[in-house]
Amino acid sequence: MTKTRVGIINVTGYAGVELARLLCRHPMVEVTSVTGRSVAGQKLSKVFPHLACLDLAIESELGEVDLVFSAMPHQESAKEVIPLLEQGLKVVDISADFRLKDANDYTRCYGFTHPAPQLLVRSVYGLTELHRDKVRSANLVANPGCYPTGAVLALAPVVKNGLIEPDIIVDAKSGISGAGRSVSLQTHYSEANEDVTAYALGGHRHLPEMVQELKMLRPRQTPSVTFVPHLTPMTRGILTTCYASFVSGKLSSGRKGEDEVRQLYQDFYKDEPFVRVTDSPPHTKHTCGSNLCLIYPAIDHRTKRLIVISCIDNLVKGAAGQAIQNMNIMLGFPETTGLDAVALYP
Amino acid sequence: MTKTRVGIINVTGYAGVELARLLCRHPMVEVTSVTGRSVAGQKLSKVFPHLACLDLAIESELGEVDLVFSAMPHQESAKEVIPLLEQGLKVVDISADFRLKDANDYTRCYGFTHPAPQLLVRSVYGLTELHRDKVRSANLVANPGCYPTGAVLALAPVVKNGLIEPDIIVDAKSGISGAGRSVSLQTHYSEANEDVTAYALGGHRHLPEMVQELKMLRPRQTPSVTFVPHLTPMTRGILTTCYASFVSGKLSSGRKGEDEVRQLYQDFYKDEPFVRVTDSPPHTKHTCGSNLCLIYPAIDHRTKRLIVISCIDNLVKGAAGQAIQNMNIMLGFPETTGLDAVALYP
Amino acid sequence: MTKTRVGIINVTGYAGVELARLLCRHPMVEVTSVTGRSVAGQKLSKVFPHLACLDLAIESELGEVDLVFSAMPHQESAKEVIPLLEQGLKVVDISADFRLKDANDYTRCYGFTHPAPQLLVRSVYGLTELHRDKVRSANLVANPGCYPTGAVLALAPVVKNGLIEPDIIVDAKSGISGAGRSVSLQTHYSEANEDVTAYALGGHRHLPEMVQELKMLRPRQTPSVTFVPHLTPMTRGILTTCYASFVSGKLSSGRKGEDEVRQLYQDFYKDEPFVRVTDSPPHTKHTCGSNLCLIYPAIDHRTKRLIVISCIDNLVKGAAGQAIQNMNIMLGFPETTGLDAVALYP
Amino acid sequence: MTKTRVGIINVTGYAGVELARLLCRHPMVEVTSVTGRSVAGQKLSKVFPHLACLDLAIESELGEVDLVFSAMPHQESAKEVIPLLEQGLKVVDISADFRLKDANDYTRCYGFTHPAPQLLVRSVYGLTELHRDKVRSANLVANPGCYPTGAVLALAPVVKNGLIEPDIIVDAKSGISGAGRSVSLQTHYSEANEDVTAYALGGHRHLPEMVQELKMLRPRQTPSVTFVPHLTPMTRGILTTCYASFVSGKLSSGRKGEDEVRQLYQDFYKDEPFVRVTDSPPHTKHTCGSNLCLIYPAIDHRTKRLIVISCIDNLVKGAAGQAIQNMNIMLGFPETTGLDAVALYP
Repeated sequence: MTKTRVGIINVTGYAGVELARLLCRHPMVEVTSVTGRSVAGQKLSKVFPHLACLDLAIESELGEVDLVFSAMPHQESAKEVIPLLEQGLKVVDISADFRLKDANDYTRCYGFTHPAPQLLVRSVYGLTELHRDKVRSANLVANPGCYPTGAVLALAPVVKNGLIEPDIIVDAKSGISGAGRSVSLQTHYSEANEDVTAYALGGHRHLPEMVQELKMLRPRQTPSVTFVPHLTPMTRGILTTCYASFVSGKLSSGRKGEDEVRQLYQDFYKDEPFVRVTDSPPHTKHTCGSNLCLIYPAIDHRTKRLIVISCIDNLVKGAAGQAIQNMNIMLGFPETTGLDAVALYP
Repeated sequence: MTKTRVGIINVTGYAGVELARLLCRHPMVEVTSVTGRSVAGQKLSKVFPHLACLDLAIESELGEVDLVFSAMPHQESAKEVIPLLEQGLKVVDISADFRLKDANDYTRCYGFTHPAPQLLVRSVYGLTELHRDKVRSANLVANPGCYPTGAVLALAPVVKNGLIEPDIIVDAKSGISGAGRSVSLQTHYSEANEDVTAYALGGHRHLPEMVQELKMLRPRQTPSVTFVPHLTPMTRGILTTCYASFVSGKLSSGRKGEDEVRQLYQDFYKDEPFVRVTDSPPHTKHTCGSNLCLIYPAIDHRTKRLIVISCIDNLVKGAAGQAIQNMNIMLGFPETTGLDAVALYP
Repeated sequence: MTKTRVGIINVTGYAGVELARLLCRHPMVEVTSVTGRSVAGQKLSKVFPHLACLDLAIESELGEVDLVFSAMPHQESAKEVIPLLEQGLKVVDISADFRLKDANDYTRCYGFTHPAPQLLVRSVYGLTELHRDKVRSANLVANPGCYPTGAVLALAPVVKNGLIEPDIIVDAKSGISGAGRSVSLQTHYSEANEDVTAYALGGHRHLPEMVQELKMLRPRQTPSVTFVPHLTPMTRGILTTCYASFVSGKLSSGRKGEDEVRQLYQDFYKDEPFVRVTDSPPHTKHTCGSNLCLIYPAIDHRTKRLIVISCIDNLVKGAAGQAIQNMNIMLGFPETTGLDAVALYP
Repeated sequence: MTKTRVGIINVTGYAGVELARLLCRHPMVEVTSVTGRSVAGQKLSKVFPHLACLDLAIESELGEVDLVFSAMPHQESAKEVIPLLEQGLKVVDISADFRLKDANDYTRCYGFTHPAPQLLVRSVYGLTELHRDKVRSANLVANPGCYPTGAVLALAPVVKNGLIEPDIIVDAKSGISGAGRSVSLQTHYSEANEDVTAYALGGHRHLPEMVQELKMLRPRQTPSVTFVPHLTPMTRGILTTCYASFVSGKLSSGRKGEDEVRQLYQDFYKDEPFVRVTDSPPHTKHTCGSNLCLIYPAIDHRTKRLIVISCIDNLVKGAAGQAIQNMNIMLGFPETTGLDAVALYP
């Protein structure tokens, strides 16, 4: 069987290198071209010794492929992707450049004028569990941010079913790899180790995505989301703790109500290969290296509030894994192809 | 000058050993007796090589002292402490046994009938910044839990001034030493490393303390607190993120309102040696080994919600350091004596 | 195709659980029975949420299988394994119980009288790269210890070719998972985190294995090995640094000699799927989750000494992965079957 | 009492900031001027929030002081220090610029021509335990590198007494802060976390210092040292494992010989406030934040080799703490002044 040729633009960031890691064991595609300007000309396995499985040189320009992953930073990604779409290539863009439907959000949150607002209509937001059908026929999938993946999957069942009030708190704890491979004082080992801190209190760029998707789930209600991301001293993983109040009268009281909520989650995700509703608070470690999202809904019986906790590996379900999940659907492969790795515990 | 003789009951837990570490450099007291049943008879410096500064044997029963710190677990601590109080000793109890004013809370949350409810009236809750005057004349100080220390200091200014609605979310991220020195699978290195998880969703034992203290700050309003503690892979530190809505009409809008909130915090803590209101989100690392509590109040301008973040070292301000702060006041020493260590950065 | 049925005795330790993790994606075998006394009766996926891929209950006694992995502790493993061998089952024993050829070593180093010395002759030491042919026909493979795996692979080319003097220093740095899943103060998070220490200076139990294998490579020379293992604050990985002097006159001087050594290593391991000779000092991270052993030989040009560094994942090539590599050979499968995972970087 | 005014050149690196941390609690000196070009003009407490104890602005040029610490990188430090010496200031230079007695070593190892070889004769190598008397009258103390501090203290007793052969292996495991505060991929959190690696196999710059000092201890014997430094995932600490063979006939055999070696170490360091000979293998954690060097000598009874292990905090005894220890002596203060912090365990 001929394998589909895929390319990775900017293989040298953590999303790019994780794509390469996962794709080199994918049975139906072959990575035939990878780019990375700063190290163009070098062997991929020289720059990333663990990728000896891929015998490729890093190029400055993409070679001929059938589908492209762009792991470029925002603003630059759009520039790379637009001509490829015009050539008829399928694209999964890991950057934020095609996630938001309102072009003004790019000016407001990302500080640049979007070069192709017409593509924002056509692009499909690749939170696969919510938009699987659209992904199937998409040429351009905008792969979700890591934080929105964890938060929206945690909240979707109750938002969609109108169970919670619009006031939502999303408190996320991320590993450091979410900040990327570019060096900075914030991600310098001796600064980040043995430290927890919050950041982006003025408004993280992933917030508009969350609001957009939550609103799409229940258009008549605009969610009022406070989102605070935190850095925690580990490499991979995001644990997201969401808080909301129930709309009164929708649930039974006490344990019965909690059972109803759990059942709602079980039903909502019952056929999903990569979402698992858990019986106890999940650990990020149980998703490390896997494409799973673990979700634990609970009720604070003292205050009657909803608490939902989700865990993902930010580089897999939060980036490269979900991108491949989308690719599988776009190319008509079984959705789980190449994504069956079991979490690396301990 | 004769130094005051102090003793530590159960020096072998992390709170006890941290007391010993801090007290061996205290200029006005001398640790003259330490107990620890499992290793009684051994030299302290043999069990804890870093404590060579204290030339003491670990005893099974406390020797003669003027003031005692109890670092026993709850329920056992009360048993040890009651006879000492009857002998007229001053006691700082690091356990929960004298923190709660309502004896029923012990039955409900700790599963035992309190042996001396009458002492609950006399004991002083040693969150020094809120109860300094009572600590001064107390014979029994109940040293606060680590989580309540971080949460109540973060919320006190706005609660006391009636600025927020009673619905409060407290999302705390703790280092692993908070779970103590007793071994368990949860605190086994390979399980806790590279992992973030939430726990005690059914109700953490520190919650009644938080509610009691917040209510005391504004008796007419019963706070409705959802508290979710998380374990993060570091040894020391707690970062607490609190969320609440403002009572409408109390603050100016926009940046001006944020300035008013900051000013309120600055004023509230202006003479406090161990509380510092920061200009940017604080890092737990900046409190490591020190008795400081860093507090950062902010407003989410999109949703108009209050976000307050605090950081402490759970073993210092969250346990041994605050116990010494209370001791200093009880014994008439300057409050900061022996507590001037600068945080161990990086 | 019917899959071969395999069982895991003591699935609840880290070697056992890692076997389960790797085997559940193995295309030619099926794990049909797992035992673990302390949690017998529970679902495997309840005890280990990441193993939802295996729908099995943990049993107290092994069910019917074709090949067994024993992940029992030493001394107990032999007891379990002997009757299985008598029933004609193939066994890969991850414990030390059949690694040493001299039964006296068990009395001396492990403190028990070996119950079946006659099996020590028949058992094959499963350092696959050195004993592949014997593994092929073995019924009992003694899977090597994690430290000997790293050390012997690092030294085999120069020992076999008589290039070095018998005086050898092996300084190994291990992640904490090597100490197993049983809780202890040494592996308590707050004790092991931010700490490096040496242990077993009186003689680690893995030393006789190293000496046995090195001597087997060059029988006329008894190696004099000083082995010091260290614990380092990470979950997985062993980096082993070996030091030795060259036999004079065997190598060219300077860079040329270094090239000759590198060539020797390249040649020695040229067809090995799981050994890679690297161009620069390897990182344990580049083996995390994979069955690779990375080896870097170098010469200290000032002192003319050999330095060889190897890296493995202690739970994969150092335990479960190598066990599966041996199983593949015993069952006539391609050696790399089920072991193609790329290292989890970053 | 008037405090002595001290200055810190380049306060923004980890050695500089650690000097500031330690000096702000020193009772006999006052930090009155700190420089740091990249952030000149900013408040020290703004750049380093934990240093609120020092109310200073970071300057571009040093103000008037009595003694200066230079924490500049090598080559740049000499340029700063030479004019200060000419002005008659006392200087403790933390860089390598005045450590080596042979000016050619600077050309060879550091790649620059030393600007003032005549000062190399006058400068005193500030390994206090070995050169205390010379430090007392020195105007220029060259503070030792972190690795030589750990290695030379570990080996000095046996080298000085001629107990070991000249062939010495020094295998050191360092925390990441030793690589400094400048960002790099090697010290990027996600790269350094969960990783151990060796580096500088071609010859680390600290090697000439080790050789110089070991040779000075026993001039008739030129040591042949192989030194391999390793990075381990922790912030602070160096554990150094040294291996050597005994000169035959110098020690009794067996346990008795080991006792003799221990006694030799006890005697050698018996009056040293900052060196402690331990009864069991030391932990870096037991030196964290303190100026201690822990040393454990042992004999491998199988091979009769000496193993000596030492632990220090690389930023304290390995840099800023030892610099202050030297300053105390230069200024006639008790040697331990300001250096009595107990290690931050756990």
